[in-house]
Amino acid sequence: MKYRSAPEAPAFLSPIAKLCSLRWNAASGVVEVIDQTRLPHTLRWCELQDLDSYCHAISTMQVRGAPLIGITAAFGLAQALSMDPSTEHLQAASARLLATRPTAVNLRWALESVAAAVRELDPADRGEVALATAQQLRARDIASCSRIGDHGLALLQALECAGPLNIMTHCNAGWLATVEWGTALAPVYKAHAAGIPVHVWVSETRPRNQGMNLTAWELQRAGVPCTVVADNSCGQLMRRGAVDCVLVGSDRTAANGDVCNKIGTYLKALAARANDIPFYVALPESTIDWHCASGDDIPIEERDQAEVLTVTGLDHAGRPQALALAAGDTLAHNPAFDVTPAELVTALVTEHGSFEASAAGLGRLRAQIFSSSPT
Amino acid sequence: MKYRSAPEAPAFLSPIAKLCSLRWNAASGVVEVIDQTRLPHTLRWCELQDLDSYCHAISTMQVRGAPLIGITAAFGLAQALSMDPSTEHLQAASARLLATRPTAVNLRWALESVAAAVRELDPADRGEVALATAQQLRARDIASCSRIGDHGLALLQALECAGPLNIMTHCNAGWLATVEWGTALAPVYKAHAAGIPVHVWVSETRPRNQGMNLTAWELQRAGVPCTVVADNSCGQLMRRGAVDCVLVGSDRTAANGDVCNKIGTYLKALAARANDIPFYVALPESTIDWHCASGDDIPIEERDQAEVLTVTGLDHAGRPQALALAAGDTLAHNPAFDVTPAELVTALVTEHGSFEASAAGLGRLRAQIFSSSPT
Repeated sequence: MKYRSAPEAPAFLSPIAKLCSLRWNAASGVVEVIDQTRLPHTLRWCELQDLDSYCHAISTMQVRGAPLIGITAAFGLAQALSMDPSTEHLQAASARLLATRPTAVNLRWALESVAAAVRELDPADRGEVALATAQQLRARDIASCSRIGDHGLALLQALECAGPLNIMTHCNAGWLATVEWGTALAPVYKAHAAGIPVHVWVSETRPRNQGMNLTAWELQRAGVPCTVVADNSCGQLMRRGAVDCVLVGSDRTAANGDVCNKIGTYLKALAARANDIPFYVALPESTIDWHCASGDDIPIEERDQAEVLTVTGLDHAGRPQALALAAGDTLAHNPAFDVTPAELVTALVTEHGSFEASAAGLGRLRAQIFSSSPT
Repeated sequence: MKYRSAPEAPAFLSPIAKLCSLRWNAASGVVEVIDQTRLPHTLRWCELQDLDSYCHAISTMQVRGAPLIGITAAFGLAQALSMDPSTEHLQAASARLLATRPTAVNLRWALESVAAAVRELDPADRGEVALATAQQLRARDIASCSRIGDHGLALLQALECAGPLNIMTHCNAGWLATVEWGTALAPVYKAHAAGIPVHVWVSETRPRNQGMNLTAWELQRAGVPCTVVADNSCGQLMRRGAVDCVLVGSDRTAANGDVCNKIGTYLKALAARANDIPFYVALPESTIDWHCASGDDIPIEERDQAEVLTVTGLDHAGRPQALALAAGDTLAHNPAFDVTPAELVTALVTEHGSFEASAAGLGRLRAQIFSSSPT
């Protein structure tokens, strides 16, 4: 994996549609992604040149966000097949990529999409078709997120509020978590573009601070007013009437409407319910796990305790540093996701429209998907 | 204010009853407190020699925790009167100390206790009586916390659980927040001493990390097993059955039983209720604001956004460092407390016993206080 400074950094101040997290460099024939572990302090693109670098990028969260994990894995499998298109390698590379993160279901969905497209082909044709499939998935993700933005915008427009619309979000479900637009932030960007005054409460999202590091950075670049708060503040903000709706993403959605998302989402859903605030979850169809009957069946990734016990930032000289927060003998536990029961979710906002978070609501979504597409 | 290394550091590994956060040095005639902003990395006692150093210690949170703030302020007022016992100075010094933190009601209670004891006296006698009153308040705090521990222990013993008792706490309500024992941690220490297997889930308590910095440090010194988690993890832990009860302190309790405590407490109370987990609040009588009809009347301190946007810890060489977490143009909002409605509180655990968190429950507590003491 090679790093280089981004020549197009100024373009990040251009309209939102120009922003993307993953791009195909046709000249070099490799995928480039923003290394999100360096944000918000450094914007670096990194080239993913082989299967190792793809696995490393996903497992170390250089790329993260369920949709982007899926798209990245699809390109990773295509890259692996361009080197060795054998059936054995197809299986081995798929298995390695699948093992990088256990919770996001898009990973499996994307790998299966590529594998299904090439499995019956002559090995000599697999690399090219796999790459074309990954490109299609990328284009589809962009289109899906844009439609999520349109459907979410309709929900935001239906909310009555006196001043600016105060939207609370958690973690990062913006264009950094997808390819463009984002899921939960897509309606925010569409509202901002439509001239609706919005303000976003960004919960910092410990332990990895994706809210502070990624969401605040994204929103600031797009000119959307936002304020960072400690995750602990979110209940109090809702209690004192400072929040008009909560809008988050999903890493995996069960067939009964339970939502598995970044740890801390469940607490916000409880506070929203207690204070009669709509709690919307924005997600592409690809995050729905139709085989998963309820959120209790979703495996919750447990990550290294060092993510809780240490922190990174910039020192007074502007140099990146890591610090130990706790005393040396401290133990920590670090689940990366939690499950929000469907009954706390006001609506699931998808590229196909908004649906009730329930088995019945997802049944209607599924019927709509099958009626609109024969696949 | 002078700093010196603590010669008695090894004593912190001795039994809990030996541990204290504030002591009177009879030889030098000054109060010494642990500088809690240095924990867990450095244990330093600091001498409070004049009114400035008392105000600084409270406002910068070198001492914190509602009971300890009150005791410290009482000694601060005594110190001020030893320099100038005039009525004007009594009023001016009280006003300065009262302004250091707006939320904890113990501050006002302790200052009024000292002022009431000296107001009618000849100025020449005020310094000595004020100091004796502060000493009495300190002794009373220790006794109250020990009784809170006994009453809380009875509640813990009534909980049925298979393995170790899993107690979740928030912020620090241990002996560092009082003089000895603590409020929420007193029952934990009593249970541990009684041979009951306990394990404490310590939520780190952003933005100032009092859970990670103070509570984990306290518990480890006392040999109580504990695990730090991000504040975001607390709902998921409750949902998966890993928590038998939640036990927190209170900075101010309203006459209807609403509890104002460290920001994030309310979210834990919501999660406890949703998962049928007892939510106990341990507090001395001195944190009850009988003039405050409901939690909505309690002023919520808003602190500097730098507490959210920067963090301190130890670098790889073991040196204390501060880091910037967010991009330079990021705004943050930093309320220090939230209000948990009485209906989410299973019981208020006081030095007088356990009471329902309601106007009726507090009425019974008040009747008991007045029947047992003519003051």
